[in-house]
Amino acid sequence: MLILHSYWLSLATYRVRIGLLLKKVAFEERTYDLLKGDQLLPGYRALNPAGAVPALEGATTRPLTQSLAILEWLDETIPSPPLMPRDPEGRARVRALFLLTAADTHPIIVPRVRKELAARFGASDDAIKQWAAHWFGEGLAAYEATLADGATRCHDETLSIADLALASHLIGATRFNVDLSPFPRVRSIGDSLFAIPEVAAAHPSLQVDAPKT
Amino acid sequence: MLILHSYWLSLATYRVRIGLLLKKVAFEERTYDLLKGDQLLPGYRALNPAGAVPALEGATTRPLTQSLAILEWLDETIPSPPLMPRDPEGRARVRALFLLTAADTHPIIVPRVRKELAARFGASDDAIKQWAAHWFGEGLAAYEATLADGATRCHDETLSIADLALASHLIGATRFNVDLSPFPRVRSIGDSLFAIPEVAAAHPSLQVDAPKT
Repeated sequence: MLILHSYWLSLATYRVRIGLLLKKVAFEERTYDLLKGDQLLPGYRALNPAGAVPALEGATTRPLTQSLAILEWLDETIPSPPLMPRDPEGRARVRALFLLTAADTHPIIVPRVRKELAARFGASDDAIKQWAAHWFGEGLAAYEATLADGATRCHDETLSIADLALASHLIGATRFNVDLSPFPRVRSIGDSLFAIPEVAAAHPSLQVDAPKT
Repeated sequence: MLILHSYWLSLATYRVRIGLLLKKVAFEERTYDLLKGDQLLPGYRALNPAGAVPALEGATTRPLTQSLAILEWLDETIPSPPLMPRDPEGRARVRALFLLTAADTHPIIVPRVRKELAARFGASDDAIKQWAAHWFGEGLAAYEATLADGATRCHDETLSIADLALASHLIGATRFNVDLSPFPRVRSIGDSLFAIPEVAAAHPSLQVDAPKT
């Protein structure tokens, strides 16, 4: 059985969890409280020196890390259903769309960065929330300018890892109260994505370590 | 002729420039002053809505963006010399190593983020330099824990895109005066990488828009 090292609120884990569900891979989750710093303890660092989730353990010599790397590995080893286009230009576009979230937005707002903003610059909780909202908004504007009118998927109307990234981006944007009204193309694709059973089932709020409300 | 939209100090452009040189692709550069915000003007935004360099124009329907996506496209369309391992686990490791820089470090310290640190939190130039040094140091520690003793390459002693990312990471770390002495594995690989003619020729300080000193 594969082990997905995870945290319910982790957007990177969410992207991978959707991929595992779509590929019908059996896995169990081992959870860490990122806000408490569980991922920085030596036990987990031995598994992933970067001290980040997700990591996927059990299928490879070393644990797999980084959501993009895990999802591409998954797509290469379990081809159906495909999550990458077959043509190099399509793959490049899907990777670039993925990285609008996974590189240009998400790393700027993760807990370890928010913690440093408070420690180094005395940033208040409110200012940090606005910081996160700003970067999600920048990412949304970049998506909106790149996506097609009335589309239901990011690329060629076929589900790809770019859609998994966009779904995670929308969850982050909603969490930080970003106004989505200026982004109708993003919203149209988002509505369609969240109707997919695996995308819905992977939602952070449904995970075992999510707070019971 | 391909056009690489670039900026001399851009670490992401540096990674792609090395790849183009290694693959012997003819290209010319069009430069933007990121510190002045040239990349955010409407003309360039029409090319890359994310307002970031590099973008590679001329080979595909739309310009290619994001260093990882461009390098993988390059490797898929020009197979020699290979810059990715052939096995899925190797590819996953190389992508994860690449993302230690391209996702976990670099996006946190780019000009647009440094500008917001000053504007939102009143961060001084010195504090911003320490911020950048901190994140390069975190990335170096993650590399050091993952790389092999005495290696000359990041993965399997074969040049890959992970090495291009590490070379760019070292240039950034040096620029922000990070002490490299705790990272002997990284330094050993770095020394070997900077001796490669294409890696040396792509160096930021040698580019047409670098300041003449």
